[in-house]
Amino acid sequence: MLSAFILMGNVLNAQVANVLKLNSPNNLMELKFYLDEQGRPRYGFKAEGLPIVKDGRLGILLKDAIGLDKDFVVDSHYTLEMDDSWTTVWGEEKQIRNHYRSLNVRLKQILGATKRTLILEFRLFDDGLGFRYIFPEDGNLGLFTVSDELTTFPLDADHDVYWIPGDYDTNEYRYSRSKLSQIHALQFSEDNNIAFKQSVHDSLVQTPLMMIAGDGYYLAIHEAALVHYPAMNLEIDRSKLELKSHLVPDVLGNKAYLQGGDKTPWRVILYAKKAKDILTNRIILNLNEPSKIADPSFIKPGKFIGVWWEMHVGKSSWNYWDKSTALSSKFWKKVNHHGANTANVIRYIDFASKHDIPYVLVEGWNEGWEDWFGAYREHIFSFSKPYPDFDINAISARAKAKNVKLIMHHETSGAVTDYERQLDTAIRFMIQYGYPGIKGGYVGKIIPRGEHHDGQWMVDHYERLASKFGLNKMTMDLHEPVRPTGLHRTYPNWWSNEAARGNEFNAWSRGNLPEHETILPFTRLLGGPMDYTPGIFQIKMNVYDSAKKEQVHTTLAKQLALYVTMYSPIQMAADLIENYEKRPDAFKFIKEVPTDWDTTVVLDAEPGDYIYMARRERNGKQWFVGAITDEQERLFEPDLSFLTPGKKYTMVVYRDGDSADWERNPMSYVIDNKTIRSTEKLKIRLAPGGGCAIQLTPAGKN
Amino acid sequence: MLSAFILMGNVLNAQVANVLKLNSPNNLMELKFYLDEQGRPRYGFKAEGLPIVKDGRLGILLKDAIGLDKDFVVDSHYTLEMDDSWTTVWGEEKQIRNHYRSLNVRLKQILGATKRTLILEFRLFDDGLGFRYIFPEDGNLGLFTVSDELTTFPLDADHDVYWIPGDYDTNEYRYSRSKLSQIHALQFSEDNNIAFKQSVHDSLVQTPLMMIAGDGYYLAIHEAALVHYPAMNLEIDRSKLELKSHLVPDVLGNKAYLQGGDKTPWRVILYAKKAKDILTNRIILNLNEPSKIADPSFIKPGKFIGVWWEMHVGKSSWNYWDKSTALSSKFWKKVNHHGANTANVIRYIDFASKHDIPYVLVEGWNEGWEDWFGAYREHIFSFSKPYPDFDINAISARAKAKNVKLIMHHETSGAVTDYERQLDTAIRFMIQYGYPGIKGGYVGKIIPRGEHHDGQWMVDHYERLASKFGLNKMTMDLHEPVRPTGLHRTYPNWWSNEAARGNEFNAWSRGNLPEHETILPFTRLLGGPMDYTPGIFQIKMNVYDSAKKEQVHTTLAKQLALYVTMYSPIQMAADLIENYEKRPDAFKFIKEVPTDWDTTVVLDAEPGDYIYMARRERNGKQWFVGAITDEQERLFEPDLSFLTPGKKYTMVVYRDGDSADWERNPMSYVIDNKTIRSTEKLKIRLAPGGGCAIQLTPAGKN
Repeated sequence: MLSAFILMGNVLNAQVANVLKLNSPNNLMELKFYLDEQGRPRYGFKAEGLPIVKDGRLGILLKDAIGLDKDFVVDSHYTLEMDDSWTTVWGEEKQIRNHYRSLNVRLKQILGATKRTLILEFRLFDDGLGFRYIFPEDGNLGLFTVSDELTTFPLDADHDVYWIPGDYDTNEYRYSRSKLSQIHALQFSEDNNIAFKQSVHDSLVQTPLMMIAGDGYYLAIHEAALVHYPAMNLEIDRSKLELKSHLVPDVLGNKAYLQGGDKTPWRVILYAKKAKDILTNRIILNLNEPSKIADPSFIKPGKFIGVWWEMHVGKSSWNYWDKSTALSSKFWKKVNHHGANTANVIRYIDFASKHDIPYVLVEGWNEGWEDWFGAYREHIFSFSKPYPDFDINAISARAKAKNVKLIMHHETSGAVTDYERQLDTAIRFMIQYGYPGIKGGYVGKIIPRGEHHDGQWMVDHYERLASKFGLNKMTMDLHEPVRPTGLHRTYPNWWSNEAARGNEFNAWSRGNLPEHETILPFTRLLGGPMDYTPGIFQIKMNVYDSAKKEQVHTTLAKQLALYVTMYSPIQMAADLIENYEKRPDAFKFIKEVPTDWDTTVVLDAEPGDYIYMARRERNGKQWFVGAITDEQERLFEPDLSFLTPGKKYTMVVYRDGDSADWERNPMSYVIDNKTIRSTEKLKIRLAPGGGCAIQLTPAGKN
Repeated sequence: MLSAFILMGNVLNAQVANVLKLNSPNNLMELKFYLDEQGRPRYGFKAEGLPIVKDGRLGILLKDAIGLDKDFVVDSHYTLEMDDSWTTVWGEEKQIRNHYRSLNVRLKQILGATKRTLILEFRLFDDGLGFRYIFPEDGNLGLFTVSDELTTFPLDADHDVYWIPGDYDTNEYRYSRSKLSQIHALQFSEDNNIAFKQSVHDSLVQTPLMMIAGDGYYLAIHEAALVHYPAMNLEIDRSKLELKSHLVPDVLGNKAYLQGGDKTPWRVILYAKKAKDILTNRIILNLNEPSKIADPSFIKPGKFIGVWWEMHVGKSSWNYWDKSTALSSKFWKKVNHHGANTANVIRYIDFASKHDIPYVLVEGWNEGWEDWFGAYREHIFSFSKPYPDFDINAISARAKAKNVKLIMHHETSGAVTDYERQLDTAIRFMIQYGYPGIKGGYVGKIIPRGEHHDGQWMVDHYERLASKFGLNKMTMDLHEPVRPTGLHRTYPNWWSNEAARGNEFNAWSRGNLPEHETILPFTRLLGGPMDYTPGIFQIKMNVYDSAKKEQVHTTLAKQLALYVTMYSPIQMAADLIENYEKRPDAFKFIKEVPTDWDTTVVLDAEPGDYIYMARRERNGKQWFVGAITDEQERLFEPDLSFLTPGKKYTMVVYRDGDSADWERNPMSYVIDNKTIRSTEKLKIRLAPGGGCAIQLTPAGKN
């Protein structure tokens, strides 16, 4: 489809008393913009007649300068209609339609000798709204420092909300559901086994914020294209039922250092009548800039195994030396269970090769793991010095011979100044040994000291990293970064992130509730793929240590279903080799499920309850279905009309055993084989905490 | 001379009641150490029977941990005598003797379950004392954070002091002289035309602190080997006449992040009966570690000219684009007086080559000068992108053909995170074009925001830089860094620093008093060489702009004398080419004076009044004499007995004209030629603010 920019003088359907109004392409959404009696910009957003956001405030306060919040007049404005579609490098869909009407309002501030200009840009889609502040180059703004952003979202009612506490440094919380007015962020902030967090305010929550309105619609607030600006938390005014932008500060309490030519990220409101339509809302991707990677052919979605889960279950260690003896290396002894040793890594390489898994992650390969945790120091990790028992030449040669690529692990321990200093050397090292990308980590307080994971300085860092790795044809998957905002469109080599509570919490803490994975796609994943690390077959941890009571809160079949319901172009098969070798029939699904899709159909979904999803592989005709449930048993009765009518399909169903239950019998599963057509009626039991994965191959195709 | 370590059981001449005493090699200095009734370490220092420091306190307070300040017992102690000498890579002297007795006291803290250890090391010389804290690797200290250092220097009397205000970010103050008890730092902190400063405390002064005792001795307090620790300011207790260590904090208020195996810099007290002997005190160098540069042959002392003073006098600009038009580059126009253009740089190269000057500095060659000052932003400067009118290939080719090396200018604007990020690229660029080193700059508030020029983070940065440039066989000369502490012994490629109020203040501010250069060698230069940029022949600025009232507070002859009195291995001939071409007879001295010496003899000196100094060139027999005075006219009657007796010397005297005066007639000078012997009696008038430079060449040698 060709892009279509249409200047639309006639879309503004009422301009009474300086109110500008704009309708969405299907005319069901309405935006209004006006300046109030003090010249303060205001906006409202209606969906199908419902007042979703009522008279929200807009404005930016500056440090040591007059704010960009009032005394404005409208200098000029124009509207456009855009209807375009674009092809993703990888993703849940191959083609994405971008259809909106936009309103661009140029405001002039009438105070003072220097006339300053601020532009507000709104894009109204059929399923939501995005808007941002633009600081024009010729707007007499110069250099300025943002002290606060005044954007508010006054809501229509006391919605139910899926939320995690506002925080400047982490998103690894369990989700809570409560009425907006009943949210008390701090009561949940202490109980999450999170190493480093900075929750600061009882009325502060993070985005993406998922809301369920009593009168039958769903709403999510997030941001898109977070670049050179801090992340936005939302501050709740419980009496007004209003959310206000709360930007993550820097060490001096400033929010952002900007200048003419800069713009804020988009503030985004996603709207749907049905929960499942939130999951295919593409506004956030559409509001991001097109790919900056000229030739993305080096970005090859796929799966990986890795020397990783064995550390989380206590079988081996990241560190090579025994850190418990004394601080000085003079006094260190070797541990006898270092995971990233040559023989073990080669075992992973051989297994990956045997099962056509393209990547192997190795954690603990490099110097620095003895005294890093919480050290809050620079010069802890080297990103180019392997431990003595990691024979990098032998390992690299084996990987090359076996056609497997090794993903480098770069744990910064938050010492980002030091990491950036070493980065050129690290990249040269990666080029030397043929590494295609990194898994990065930011566990710990950030250095520069006083900066936060989600502040402007770090947001700049992540983008710089994506750009630099991109130039070097390398990918990155960051753990503990700021939560994503669709930047994987612009930097498709930044192909995944953690930025939420991942599967590993189940290995050593009270873990994640069975409902956790039914919430994530409605919250965290709205911003982009997550490296959740599914595929755990050995669900109870007492196998590794009889004293352990921890377990993954899942059935085995649900772990398979997650490969469909929880999207990432790079997916881990996270469990140990030996656990996969014991269950080759179930592992077959992990081998076969793709990580890049042509089409996604959400069969049904309700946050906190269940997600049923079907996806067709990119450049192929197979379909894969994933169905997961929370702690409730459910009957999954998928409508298979997404299949080509009349065509026969070979179906393999990986389902919970009849007595399966996440707590009492999690590892019971059944595999059924059958030939079916799209009219087939299925009834599949999902166990409490269970799930189901289905592979559908057109008959005649292998 | 062989190094001589002698274990000296007998030097401790009294051990009554846990008091350990140590005498200096000549037995005229005495150190005592003891633990008081609370187990707090204490020390005292006597010189020739005078109680220089009386019962100083020692100790380190930690953040969130019990302090290392009391409840100690002496675990063990030993003493050594060292008599050694070592050869400098370059310097004021070729050979330096290192003769001291040391006392090493191992303290154990008796509180708590974990027995922690702290070592105090004292080195007592015939002309002063150094001591430091050592945190042993096996001392059960782990990682710790210093919140305060308790070291005090309780003085014997209310000495006269040459001081500048304590500050966390700058040393570019004019010096004041007052009684210790009369120092009010803040009263002088506002009046110095310093771009960025952080003076915080009315009783705070910086080191090196020069004191003149009423009863006839001189004292200077400084530190040596400032590594991985913040700089020390001194806090004055006016009633007790006591100075206390005040460490520069980081953004969180912490002082230093250390661990077992670390040590503090040396706290140093220099002592002399005569002021002139302070100038040849080598304790600070002796307390630094030997050179880490295995092959220092790439470090070639010499002189440089540069595209620099012309910007300070307003003849040309650093920036290529006119920054006054608007912020965005879209709106910029070219300036018509950009200094670092190809033709101008080639003019400097040709002049340098013609006069055997090995180096040419170029400032303003690189992108970023439009909007840098005070911007407090990253991504301002590029260190590998020349301006369009700086034809780097043509310039580099000309420099190569003319056997001249270009010194790169790296102005960071304080954005050190960004500089470190670009450093690998910058060094590769320097290698590509054959640049031998940098002049670095730190004008502005530091990024990481909230860090200070003189805090631990920046101290680490400077050392990292010295090490990295050293590995790449490059030199560095830093402007606006922390003041030096003798680290040029360890990193001889870190060959100069500004770190004080330089000559350029005279070009555009009330400038420096005529006494300024008679104080600097007694203060700032105790730590190491200074890039003061002498050699200004055109002394009044009204030549460049008739409205200008500024001038250098000097005569022309004094500018020549500074090449002898103000040591640096890399000395600028700072004035414009045309000013040198007008006075080739005077410029001859600049051409001939070396920057590397075999021997230094201070004929006489008094801080704030005059300095008379003679030096013999390294690997040669010529002597050079420099004599400078403050605003007072003086008769300089040098004793030439440093010359080889009986030998004839050709003498060239560059002296003030008979009516010369820094204010009324600064550019009047006379050059006398004569043949003399060491018994010659000279009488040379030094004009107010004047000086005299002498070259003495053994007759028969050319």
